Amino acid sequence: MLTPRAEDFPRWYQDLIAKAKLADNGPVRGTMVIRPVGYAIWERMQADMDARIKQAGVQNAYFPLFIPESYLRREADHVEGFSPELAVVTHAGGKELSEPLVVRPTSETVIGEFMAKWVDSYRDLPLLLNQWANVVRWELRPRTFLRTTEFLWQEGHTAHASEADAREHARDVHRNVYEAFMTDFLAIPVVPGRKTRKERFAGATNTMTVEAMMGDTKALQMGTSHELGQNFAKAFDISYSSAAGGVEHAWTTSWGTSTRMLGGLIMVHGDDNGLRLPPVMAPVQVQVMVVKAGDGVAEAATQLFQDLKTAGVRVKLDDRSDVPFGRRAVDAELQGIPIRIEVGPRDLATGNVTIARRVDGSKTPTAIGDVVGAVTSALKADQQRLYDEALAFRAANTVEVKTLGDAIEAAQTGWARVPWSAVGEDGEAEANGKAVTVRCLVRADGSMPDSGDEDGLVAILARSY
Amino acid sequence: MLTPRAEDFPRWYQDLIAKAKLADNGPVRGTMVIRPVGYAIWERMQADMDARIKQAGVQNAYFPLFIPESYLRREADHVEGFSPELAVVTHAGGKELSEPLVVRPTSETVIGEFMAKWVDSYRDLPLLLNQWANVVRWELRPRTFLRTTEFLWQEGHTAHASEADAREHARDVHRNVYEAFMTDFLAIPVVPGRKTRKERFAGATNTMTVEAMMGDTKALQMGTSHELGQNFAKAFDISYSSAAGGVEHAWTTSWGTSTRMLGGLIMVHGDDNGLRLPPVMAPVQVQVMVVKAGDGVAEAATQLFQDLKTAGVRVKLDDRSDVPFGRRAVDAELQGIPIRIEVGPRDLATGNVTIARRVDGSKTPTAIGDVVGAVTSALKADQQRLYDEALAFRAANTVEVKTLGDAIEAAQTGWARVPWSAVGEDGEAEANGKAVTVRCLVRADGSMPDSGDEDGLVAILARSY
Repeated sequence: MLTPRAEDFPRWYQDLIAKAKLADNGPVRGTMVIRPVGYAIWERMQADMDARIKQAGVQNAYFPLFIPESYLRREADHVEGFSPELAVVTHAGGKELSEPLVVRPTSETVIGEFMAKWVDSYRDLPLLLNQWANVVRWELRPRTFLRTTEFLWQEGHTAHASEADAREHARDVHRNVYEAFMTDFLAIPVVPGRKTRKERFAGATNTMTVEAMMGDTKALQMGTSHELGQNFAKAFDISYSSAAGGVEHAWTTSWGTSTRMLGGLIMVHGDDNGLRLPPVMAPVQVQVMVVKAGDGVAEAATQLFQDLKTAGVRVKLDDRSDVPFGRRAVDAELQGIPIRIEVGPRDLATGNVTIARRVDGSKTPTAIGDVVGAVTSALKADQQRLYDEALAFRAANTVEVKTLGDAIEAAQTGWARVPWSAVGEDGEAEANGKAVTVRCLVRADGSMPDSGDEDGLVAILARSY
Repeated sequence: MLTPRAEDFPRWYQDLIAKAKLADNGPVRGTMVIRPVGYAIWERMQADMDARIKQAGVQNAYFPLFIPESYLRREADHVEGFSPELAVVTHAGGKELSEPLVVRPTSETVIGEFMAKWVDSYRDLPLLLNQWANVVRWELRPRTFLRTTEFLWQEGHTAHASEADAREHARDVHRNVYEAFMTDFLAIPVVPGRKTRKERFAGATNTMTVEAMMGDTKALQMGTSHELGQNFAKAFDISYSSAAGGVEHAWTTSWGTSTRMLGGLIMVHGDDNGLRLPPVMAPVQVQVMVVKAGDGVAEAATQLFQDLKTAGVRVKLDDRSDVPFGRRAVDAELQGIPIRIEVGPRDLATGNVTIARRVDGSKTPTAIGDVVGAVTSALKADQQRLYDEALAFRAANTVEVKTLGDAIEAAQTGWARVPWSAVGEDGEAEANGKAVTVRCLVRADGSMPDSGDEDGLVAILARSY
């Protein structure tokens, strides 16, 4: 039904999105429609990440979509980084505007403007804000979820009294919000690391990333956190009177994740039959299915549905016996529902139903009285199994090499770990010429480097989305 | 501190929004920044309404921000209704676009396009979709929350196999989502009714509204639901093969509510000391305050905070004893927190704390052991009290009259109920000339009219926002 992954990975990806009804292309090039099946996944992601963001002491707010063009010009690197991607409103209310308005590609500038208004004394710091919003970046080579002209995201923006406090906050979010969310909720192993100077966000002094290996061994940047130094604070005059009585510029950070994570979820966990959703995050964990009508089948299915609901499982009853069972089962597989419970007359005659697990394709006849217990433990085991599979895949496709040449070669079919000292900025440019990028720099022990100049850093080289 | 309501209601409204830190004006005329205090209220509204929408069988999805200009032209009334309000993107990616893009003022057209793709047979109907999104309508006379160039809203869009089914759905949402939400959650009494032909949504065959009386006796439209007949289905070719084998056009509806409801909440429940939040919806229901440091004060406050949290109350601990108590109490009043528990050394010496209720300003010394019970019943009583007060105010400011002249006069200081037969479309134009509008038509028994031509309809005339 789907193009096999091994045959044509990009086509498999687009097939899956279409057939599982996750998204459609929008009418304007590069835009997308997120359909109910896809949006339900995004809502689950949003809710879980939002709770983690609030747990980190951050408050949500909402800033305007339209940004005066002049705002972007105030921070030189920022305007240079975004110019080619901007969508511009020139007419509104039936007239030409005196100043064109940029549709936000990100909100650093407008939030900077308001932080300057709201911050007065050191008592107002840290100021920790987050926004869930749509942003627009004109894409020349769009791909659903991964690179779209409009996407949904959260963007955190914070202001601090010191560089150390800003750095600690950015790292806290990076580890305890992003890395934890991706590991525990999405069941995706990620490598947290530091971007090279070349890969940094426009206007940042440091960009941290979480990188994941997709099913074709390419890398996907799943989220980034930036230390912005005093660049934006100076451009927007975010200053405060310190406890000592002087006037100082604040230190700011920003951090973001987007609907791009949906693309990562598909490319990490999907297989030739469709999506496989980690049970913890699946909008529907269990689909109870009437195989075909028969003595007591509908009643037994309804009872199981109720029992599972009572046990706190997110369960859906599928009693559409006018639609062929095979088609319904294929749809449930495409959409990645972790468990199907198939209730049919023959099994039922012996007091059984069949538990079908999406992750490994197993089908197990199970006594009705054992279903709730079996489902609960299967959901737990399958969450772990998806994570373990992805981790094993990454390990099997990562090699340690010593030279730039070996790294570029290895990066054609996986990830290469190579001493950063063997690459450097010239080597990075050479790799880029061969469609390989330095995904991030990590310390040998896996911890986050404080600088790109530390001794002993390891660079991860890969092709990427 | 605030301009008194009786002195200058519009200024009181803007003062309250600024001093309670609910919102700021954005950099582009007519836009707003929703600050954390205001956004927390919106999040509570969103969560509750979203649950009601899902309960009605509707699924969330997301459609693009940018709509090709040509889409709006397909439905003649629709383009005429929205043209003067549109913001238009003419440049993107560094180039002039071949077709200008409209920033969505509403998504009927783009959703129509996709419904046409997704609907094939009668089995695909009804198709019930909702979207939470930002929309843009250029405003010449903006006012925070009430009329802003960009606002946040939900827009439901549904397609049905018959006019009767479309009508029933629209009424179900209007009653069981909108009216119930406003009554039970916002504690705002609303009048559901039918808009006149003149006040209908662009492209609709029927618009239903829920109208509320603000504290200055003006009316605010809190939400609307539209039957769109087959107008959009024909313009976008949303057709289906029927059970009988023919090909038919679908019948569509749409319905929306927005951040405008925040303005209504302020203007219905606010008083000279600030906002008063209905306890059911308040992000923070109880603020436990350390009045000043002293023997066991911090410990007692922390214990009460924990006890209330355990009892399921949304509670916040305010132990900032370096900020004057008076200022903190004023801020809590401004923000409308339903209950403050003041913990001070003097009361504590006798085993008491003070429960201060925002709704009536009462302060009651309460034994520590009785606090949880007293708070729980006060929250319940104050929700009801806010509703009852608003209902009594509306009743006191509504008159029954017989003629258009009396209705226009009465509408200067309240609402006038007058037979629609005494007004008619000519009378409506006359009233409009005096800044009075027909808010809606209702049946004498309060139920929703099936048509504007029914005998015995009552028109409600008022000034409005």
